[in-house]
Amino acid sequence: MTRSELAKMIDHTVLRADAAQGDVAALCDEAVHNGFAAVSINPAWVSFCAKKLEGSGVLVNATIGFPLGANTAAVKVAEARDAVKNGATELDMVINVGALKSGYAEFVEKEIAAVVKAAEGVPVKVILETSLLNTDEKIAVCEMAMRAGAAFVKTSTGFGRAGATTDDVALMRQVVGAKLGVKAAGGIRSYADAAAMIGAGADRLGTSSGVAILKEMPGE
Amino acid sequence: MTRSELAKMIDHTVLRADAAQGDVAALCDEAVHNGFAAVSINPAWVSFCAKKLEGSGVLVNATIGFPLGANTAAVKVAEARDAVKNGATELDMVINVGALKSGYAEFVEKEIAAVVKAAEGVPVKVILETSLLNTDEKIAVCEMAMRAGAAFVKTSTGFGRAGATTDDVALMRQVVGAKLGVKAAGGIRSYADAAAMIGAGADRLGTSSGVAILKEMPGE
Repeated sequence: MTRSELAKMIDHTVLRADAAQGDVAALCDEAVHNGFAAVSINPAWVSFCAKKLEGSGVLVNATIGFPLGANTAAVKVAEARDAVKNGATELDMVINVGALKSGYAEFVEKEIAAVVKAAEGVPVKVILETSLLNTDEKIAVCEMAMRAGAAFVKTSTGFGRAGATTDDVALMRQVVGAKLGVKAAGGIRSYADAAAMIGAGADRLGTSSGVAILKEMPGE
Repeated sequence: MTRSELAKMIDHTVLRADAAQGDVAALCDEAVHNGFAAVSINPAWVSFCAKKLEGSGVLVNATIGFPLGANTAAVKVAEARDAVKNGATELDMVINVGALKSGYAEFVEKEIAAVVKAAEGVPVKVILETSLLNTDEKIAVCEMAMRAGAAFVKTSTGFGRAGATTDDVALMRQVVGAKLGVKAAGGIRSYADAAAMIGAGADRLGTSSGVAILKEMPGE
């Protein structure tokens, strides 16, 4: 793997509530400079990033129902539409974990499908929040994401109890095969972390440490 | 203060992403049994709670733009409308901290006013997320909330760096006077915590420990 191949797997991420315009502008500049896949930002910053990144090839990745996933389906759909209208070119949506825990699997799958539809072709990544799910639930949500037309399954929000683990990434890759992407996120802070996730099957990494990770990469 | 007066100041709260229907049902039952002011829940549970609490006098308090506050104004407005339509009788909205930090105070105030308008008379509490703000910013947001027609200012989401402090509650009460309510939330786990917040000027408490707090209250 070359440095630029690694960069192309990284969603350069700033999701803190107090991230200011200067932080988001710097994120965009770093994403262009390093050749990252995307910037991953809260929806209020989508318009700003879409303008700033126009023509750069860097994707604008907006979070939907983030980070609790406990909004109504109608609001997740409205947020997805709004983000796409504002220039988002990828969406990372959080499933309704509480509904899943209540036995409403059908609702969870329909909600994913509704967001995929609202995204009108913009790829949707489905965040499982793996730290809250058991193995059967993780497998079930990966299968739902495939049936519902999602582009990726993603481990974590980074705001939950824990982030990505290589075990979860391997499990998710096993379920989705080559059909969907697998994004690892949460707690990926070093080149060693990144390499472990890729080794386990991830083809996208969500991290706020992308610049440091590239610097730590051993010489090609 | 009597036990029932204290109960009437408590928003009985479950905002975990993995709260299931059974947890929310128990929350409603406890709120009725103890005479709490409200249940405070994520928007996906509003319909369920509104039905379950019909005629009980317990308010249904929905979170808006929660907990990061970094959604677009359009989506916060849509979420407020949706929650009211589903039966919410109070809304707790998070301000856009990142916009405030970027110098867009006017935007922050307009967004509060837009949510108040969308709520159509349902009282709106404005969450400052005090742990991210300096003193001037806390004062400024309290003044915005007053001008924008909010019913309460509230310290924290409970998902931020820190929760309510007596200093913040006292400052907020000083700014809003008797014009608005002050809700303390985040880290209130004991009767001593509750009493300290009330002593500092809070007239509403957001806590998931309401039942324990009432039990710990010294005999009347």
